Amino acid sequence: MTARILDFETVDLRFPTSRELDGSDAMNPAPDYSAAYLVLRTDHPRAPEGHGFTFTIGRGNELVVAAVEAVARRATGLPVEEITADLGGFARHLAADSQLRWLGPDKGVLHLATAAVVNAVWDLAAKIAGEPVWKLLADMPPEQLVDLVDWRYLRDELSPAAALDLLRAAEPGRAERERHVRESGYPAYTTSAGWLGYDDDKLRRLCREAVDAGWGSVKLKVGADLDDDRRRCRIAREVLGPQRRLMIDANQTLGVQDAIRWHRGLSEFDIHWFEEPTSPDDVLGHAAIQRAIAPTHVATGEHGHNAVMFKQFLQAEAIGICQLDACRLAGVNEAVAVLLLAAARGVPVCPHAGGVGLCELVQHLSIFDYVAVSGSLDDRVVEYVDHLHEHFVDPVRMRDGRYLPPEAPGYSAEIRRDSLRRFSFPDGPEWS
Amino acid sequence: MTARILDFETVDLRFPTSRELDGSDAMNPAPDYSAAYLVLRTDHPRAPEGHGFTFTIGRGNELVVAAVEAVARRATGLPVEEITADLGGFARHLAADSQLRWLGPDKGVLHLATAAVVNAVWDLAAKIAGEPVWKLLADMPPEQLVDLVDWRYLRDELSPAAALDLLRAAEPGRAERERHVRESGYPAYTTSAGWLGYDDDKLRRLCREAVDAGWGSVKLKVGADLDDDRRRCRIAREVLGPQRRLMIDANQTLGVQDAIRWHRGLSEFDIHWFEEPTSPDDVLGHAAIQRAIAPTHVATGEHGHNAVMFKQFLQAEAIGICQLDACRLAGVNEAVAVLLLAAARGVPVCPHAGGVGLCELVQHLSIFDYVAVSGSLDDRVVEYVDHLHEHFVDPVRMRDGRYLPPEAPGYSAEIRRDSLRRFSFPDGPEWS
Repeated sequence: MTARILDFETVDLRFPTSRELDGSDAMNPAPDYSAAYLVLRTDHPRAPEGHGFTFTIGRGNELVVAAVEAVARRATGLPVEEITADLGGFARHLAADSQLRWLGPDKGVLHLATAAVVNAVWDLAAKIAGEPVWKLLADMPPEQLVDLVDWRYLRDELSPAAALDLLRAAEPGRAERERHVRESGYPAYTTSAGWLGYDDDKLRRLCREAVDAGWGSVKLKVGADLDDDRRRCRIAREVLGPQRRLMIDANQTLGVQDAIRWHRGLSEFDIHWFEEPTSPDDVLGHAAIQRAIAPTHVATGEHGHNAVMFKQFLQAEAIGICQLDACRLAGVNEAVAVLLLAAARGVPVCPHAGGVGLCELVQHLSIFDYVAVSGSLDDRVVEYVDHLHEHFVDPVRMRDGRYLPPEAPGYSAEIRRDSLRRFSFPDGPEWS
Repeated sequence: MTARILDFETVDLRFPTSRELDGSDAMNPAPDYSAAYLVLRTDHPRAPEGHGFTFTIGRGNELVVAAVEAVARRATGLPVEEITADLGGFARHLAADSQLRWLGPDKGVLHLATAAVVNAVWDLAAKIAGEPVWKLLADMPPEQLVDLVDWRYLRDELSPAAALDLLRAAEPGRAERERHVRESGYPAYTTSAGWLGYDDDKLRRLCREAVDAGWGSVKLKVGADLDDDRRRCRIAREVLGPQRRLMIDANQTLGVQDAIRWHRGLSEFDIHWFEEPTSPDDVLGHAAIQRAIAPTHVATGEHGHNAVMFKQFLQAEAIGICQLDACRLAGVNEAVAVLLLAAARGVPVCPHAGGVGLCELVQHLSIFDYVAVSGSLDDRVVEYVDHLHEHFVDPVRMRDGRYLPPEAPGYSAEIRRDSLRRFSFPDGPEWS
């Protein structure tokens, strides 16, 4: 009997994080971290459910949930094994509704929704394989990995043949790197200390705690007031000492010239990277900023809405750090595309995380990148934010500031039933 | 007594155009031309209603309608005269919900929805002024026009001061150009002949009818099969003769190298512009294509999602024709930004039209551009597609292949009550 995707369930999940100013930055003063959450239901004996989601920060999550439903309808009724045998074809099928495509294309609400569906299907595929997603990916032959990607708009930068060469060149070391990452984990950095809504005392205390906990780097939100940011960077640098790394993040609040001026005002504090200095759409603007602030790296990607944008950031030498997002991109397939593009240019991928469950997802992508794509840990760190993990069935496990590879089958995407009920918007007990 | 926006009504309006393959192209084989339609209701004696909409091609229109409601809530209750006295501030207010912004930013469903709300407010403002929108704009002092724009991400290309200079330089000729456009109309071109779903006989007949009707140029959809496109371009060129212009439009179906190859295969037919050759996000790709196919112009913009994208297309010299869209951009304000950016670079703006009511809207923008911004008609043509105009209360008026300036107060955005009822989805009589 052929197992199929029978139907699906969505949840408009919202955590009231704005009450504590967790996650506050210059662009987003009061986010309520949210997820448009999807459960695909199947009659497959090993994977009765596939869980996926995309991350938003509150209002409008209902629009993404409605879009998830529109996209998930394209998966309903399909045979599970047919999908999992051709995950590239499935992702292209999802994106091929020309009427829905008009609403992007390949960006915004529809693309976020597509991420949730693609991620849920990868969760299914990995459960059927009995492996975590990173391991499922890391064991795929190069031909199969290349076929995950929609190459239509990418070939002028990287051909499928060149991608194949790149993956084949990484094959010999796969087993050794897998052993290493299982033993030692994948490096991380923390943003928990630096939210803009925290006062100086809390900032100092949290930086101190980060150092004591063994973190080698800290990231501060900046961009509202340069004098404030100078004071806050001074505090952080004092606590960090000269060796640890300090990164800053303006969350898109600045124009191109203002971003360059901001960096000039803070450069004495030895900034390792300057994240989201300006509009995430401004490839040429980022390139101008990167030329002006080197050797500080420009970092962006959490709002990089598709692989075409990353292709250009790389072509224009506009970024030194590639911060792909597991839900802003259309799920695992498009993330694989960006990992390949970045590896071909030798640009480190340091994924955006935090939010709801982004740490849980991106650890899979980075560990796969290390084992089978870039083969490198140099200058690679995955963002880590210490909140909301308690809601996950298979939460991230950290040791000495490093992510330990997930072991349970799936994409670590599943949220506890009790949390889904409690934080369901607007009728869950936390909201009603 | 202060008049306010009291409440609003939305309509999910869909025309079953896929039944006739009107509007078919290589990316969009069967669109149902649709509008997420908004009526803002006020207690203002001269403007009890402001009408606005954004255009989609069918499925997903319900998502945009829901987003229009989310954005329109930010306008509800506001004093009408306060809004119309500060239309720049109002547009920035609409875009300033940081939680909703996350869903873009400035792109996709939320941005399309913002266009509907901004357009409805301009309809209100023009009705209160007793003028069509183009005239309201054309009579604004340069300072006020500059203040319509959100300059945050644009200053590195064009400063507000430089924009002011540009507008002041155009002031002396305003009255003369207004007289001229009222007498002679604004030039147009037609796409009606060239939809991909039409067979060769229908193509030849429609090209012949276009020539007989006095059109100086025709645009063909291409991009599915190069041999087919060679045959169709040959037919069109035979009918057009050597003097009239032939444009082609691939609707984003091609990669960068394929687009260059496609142009090579069609260049013998003397192509004036090549529209949407590849992904609308690929600034650097368009630049590469433009370098390869000159003197044919690259044209794009109907999916140019915000002014930051147009800034880059201009900076990279990636386009020779700027095809802004009145609803893809966030309404009149962002369209004014793009008109200023294009004028500063001397690139002609030839707006995207067709769809539902796009002709009705963009005529205002182009006439304003001629009267008060670029001051030029050289190489400027507004797209014209001859369908669905019968649903509008104040439809476009064409004479000798030119748009006659609208005279009724407002933005020509109002659709007849009967049409709203009949084509309402899914319960209107055309659908149920």
